[in-house]
Amino acid sequence: MDFSSKLLENAVNEVSRLPGIGKRTALRLVLHLLKQPAENTGYLAEALTQLRNEVKSCQKCHNISDTVLCDICNNPNRNAEIVCVVEDIRDVMAIENTAQFKGLYHVLGGKISPIEGVGPQDLEIESLVEKVKSGEVKELIFALSSTMEGDTTNFYIYKQIEGYEVVTSTIARGISVGDELEYADEVTLGRSILNRIPFEQSLKQ
Amino acid sequence: MDFSSKLLENAVNEVSRLPGIGKRTALRLVLHLLKQPAENTGYLAEALTQLRNEVKSCQKCHNISDTVLCDICNNPNRNAEIVCVVEDIRDVMAIENTAQFKGLYHVLGGKISPIEGVGPQDLEIESLVEKVKSGEVKELIFALSSTMEGDTTNFYIYKQIEGYEVVTSTIARGISVGDELEYADEVTLGRSILNRIPFEQSLKQ
Repeated sequence: MDFSSKLLENAVNEVSRLPGIGKRTALRLVLHLLKQPAENTGYLAEALTQLRNEVKSCQKCHNISDTVLCDICNNPNRNAEIVCVVEDIRDVMAIENTAQFKGLYHVLGGKISPIEGVGPQDLEIESLVEKVKSGEVKELIFALSSTMEGDTTNFYIYKQIEGYEVVTSTIARGISVGDELEYADEVTLGRSILNRIPFEQSLKQ
Repeated sequence: MDFSSKLLENAVNEVSRLPGIGKRTALRLVLHLLKQPAENTGYLAEALTQLRNEVKSCQKCHNISDTVLCDICNNPNRNAEIVCVVEDIRDVMAIENTAQFKGLYHVLGGKISPIEGVGPQDLEIESLVEKVKSGEVKELIFALSSTMEGDTTNFYIYKQIEGYEVVTSTIARGISVGDELEYADEVTLGRSILNRIPFEQSLKQ
């Protein structure tokens, strides 16, 4: 792409560094900003800079937070003995939306992935193991994505806490509510049969 | 969406104001920035702010430029008597990429669109008409998109310069190079037959 302006080229380059945004989309976004009042660009730039410089992560669960402890960890009505282990804060938001979970979270910040160069030391695993060792956690729910990396991470943590008194579980894998059986992959379908639940129990959900 | 942080919510809201970016995508982009070094967010914010505050438009063609006259208008090898009228700077970039046009451009900044509240006074039409009236332009090529708004804009400008000595043309509409006839819409196909060109001429292109 040949740009008529260095400033424009620079802005397009910076925007196209974002994941999933190519040069053409970046140009469209930047030209949109140019058509808007200058304040809008100011607000955007300030919101991003402020977030990046001032954001904290909750000392307890490593969720993104404006305060030392996040609202969930600070809530006395939540059961601190049950901890749900998730990859990142989008998973916290997704589970919170279900309103089915009343325990606390532990955000790892990713999954173990040798290909991407992410090892256990890059994640918040040690602090999780400490929580278990101190006895404050009675149940761990692994809610990582069902991929090789997710399974590896689950298993690594499981090995670290072996021998300590804690119940571990993983979220159920099965056919999505509303999905047709014929379109499900065989691994998921197989697991949904192996892990079948009493019909009476399903009636109550 | 419930955010655990006001700063995060604010950043996501600002990013999701961009066209084609919803809240989920905005969250993904913002979390990506949080995983990167803080400088990267700084560079992005600065590039956008600097562009918005310092960018100029070329006094002659209204293309985006860092200088008073853009590189194209400044180039003595280009024919200033032929002016190609386009909607925005992306069209300039697209036509420049073909290396088929050696005249100058005139960037209108949009199309006349009553539905979106864009009238002739919101576009760079008056300065174009002035150029024609002064006699410095001998040929105008309309290269607006082939929509109702584009056609209206073409016609409006055409009426404004009626009676002045200037040749007007529009870019050819027809079947795209490499396209199958059966998938072309009938209007385009019809126009491509009406505006057929001598075969010998096509051999030379």
